Amino acid sequence: MTRRHLPRLIISAGDPAGVGPEVTVKALAQSHVRNLGEIAVVGDPAHLRRTAAQLGLPTPEKIEPAGDAGHVRAGQLSGYGGAAAVAAVRRAVELIQAGGYDALVTAPINKEALKLAGFDWPGHTEMLADLTASEEVRMLLVTDRLKVVHVTTHRSLRSAIDAATRARIVRTIELAHAGARQLGFDRPRIAVAGLNPHAGEGGLFGDEEAREIAPAVAEARAEGIDASGPWPPDTLFWRAKNGDFDLVVAMYHDQGHIPAKLGGFDEGVNVTLGLPFPRASVDHGTAFDIAGKGVARWTSMAAAIGVAAHLVANRR
Amino acid sequence: MTRRHLPRLIISAGDPAGVGPEVTVKALAQSHVRNLGEIAVVGDPAHLRRTAAQLGLPTPEKIEPAGDAGHVRAGQLSGYGGAAAVAAVRRAVELIQAGGYDALVTAPINKEALKLAGFDWPGHTEMLADLTASEEVRMLLVTDRLKVVHVTTHRSLRSAIDAATRARIVRTIELAHAGARQLGFDRPRIAVAGLNPHAGEGGLFGDEEAREIAPAVAEARAEGIDASGPWPPDTLFWRAKNGDFDLVVAMYHDQGHIPAKLGGFDEGVNVTLGLPFPRASVDHGTAFDIAGKGVARWTSMAAAIGVAAHLVANRR
Repeated sequence: MTRRHLPRLIISAGDPAGVGPEVTVKALAQSHVRNLGEIAVVGDPAHLRRTAAQLGLPTPEKIEPAGDAGHVRAGQLSGYGGAAAVAAVRRAVELIQAGGYDALVTAPINKEALKLAGFDWPGHTEMLADLTASEEVRMLLVTDRLKVVHVTTHRSLRSAIDAATRARIVRTIELAHAGARQLGFDRPRIAVAGLNPHAGEGGLFGDEEAREIAPAVAEARAEGIDASGPWPPDTLFWRAKNGDFDLVVAMYHDQGHIPAKLGGFDEGVNVTLGLPFPRASVDHGTAFDIAGKGVARWTSMAAAIGVAAHLVANRR
Repeated sequence: MTRRHLPRLIISAGDPAGVGPEVTVKALAQSHVRNLGEIAVVGDPAHLRRTAAQLGLPTPEKIEPAGDAGHVRAGQLSGYGGAAAVAAVRRAVELIQAGGYDALVTAPINKEALKLAGFDWPGHTEMLADLTASEEVRMLLVTDRLKVVHVTTHRSLRSAIDAATRARIVRTIELAHAGARQLGFDRPRIAVAGLNPHAGEGGLFGDEEAREIAPAVAEARAEGIDASGPWPPDTLFWRAKNGDFDLVVAMYHDQGHIPAKLGGFDEGVNVTLGLPFPRASVDHGTAFDIAGKGVARWTSMAAAIGVAAHLVANRR
């Protein structure tokens, strides 16, 4: 038996004023996390060393230098922090595209800090789509018992309804199918949620199910995907959580986020589908209010590293 | 110490072709359920006796006759079943309004059966609002750890957004406040959900929070209600479940139903606020597919009886 090589993961340390470097150092101090792959961190080396020293933990073994955190103060929103965060992500993307790494794990950035640094991206997802010229990306939320891909995310509910078109839903199902396979489901059972209460109750509570969703499910099935629905949203997530389905396609942000976050926050992982490489992220923000205090929890970072390793392993 | 009299509850047995009579008989066979109040059942006495005999359980002690289940077959959708169900509810309302009972507990009815019997009500809530000339009613879902009142329920998501007006939200908060007090919360902490992702992210993802919801919360606070929000929906339900709030006001059906139903179905209770008397209902349907087989679970009926007793006790 030949030994398969380990997934090569790169972690962008996020805004140095936030909890990103701290949760990265803490997660990598755990041997069970380190053993998930060959793991490098991209960020300001001096800042990462200082963070580790303050926590009394080892400095990550492999650091790819990018960004300057010299002017950054813990917990302080600034353009310096935003610029350092962007530099780290840019460098990580370069290194992956050059073949040096298999997947990206991102620590949190802050939208306001990005703006102060002169960048308009509202978040990682849009930044990564832009940097890799990816046209269609979707957000997959991964928790232990619930996996949800969203047709749309960061827009008003009213405009999310307008955007839930047959074509967009089909593309979402396709990306969800590919993502579920990377998560290890051989022939994933994809459940597509309705948009309206009771999935429209036969047209009584809205016609989007008949007009857009059902045709999209039929189209995906014709492509050989095991998709079903539209299902009544209020019982679907309970059914999925209990094993009836492997993954749910949600019609809008909160339809998927409310059930995924109801189990607590520590283990949630945010995956971007549709990029040229797997990307997983912690499911929390920069948390400036607790940054630098040594109290941030590293479990979401560990979960993100685990999911990224998994995505790489199943991709091969 | 004088003995306070027990809540006097009346259970409408629902569509005799469904699981209603069965779960009623089963729940009342439990002494801990019977002890919750002075409990009567309204329905076809012969059918209730037959149901009890088939289950090998005692016939409910007190039956108020209404409806004829003679032509009804278990599991069979029919206008006979719908007519019997309506007759039971009508009689229950009469008896409560005449002062004979304090609260109503409803077993499930079927919308199609109602239609076959010539009635247009889509469900109990609309039927009861009509029979009691109640202008504004709201649905409260009660589970162990989550209580949610809905601004709207059975309409398309698009029209639910249109209906989430300041005036309607204020009225919902008021009814939620009164309902929470009946549930035993002395000064209930009411959390009002946003409509859009991240509660609109400062106007970036929709303006309904600024235009309708925030002014409604302010108005309710001016009335002395401990209301807060609009909160980001995706983390609010987790916070409420963990004790930060006593009750959540949800902007639309699925926003509240998805988290309330994620814990499983057995213990869910549906309460109608805004009627002249408390009304609690099981949180499941007629389940024609398992009716007459003796396998229906009675726990939701027991929970509904418990909630109704509670509402009466705190109302006095």
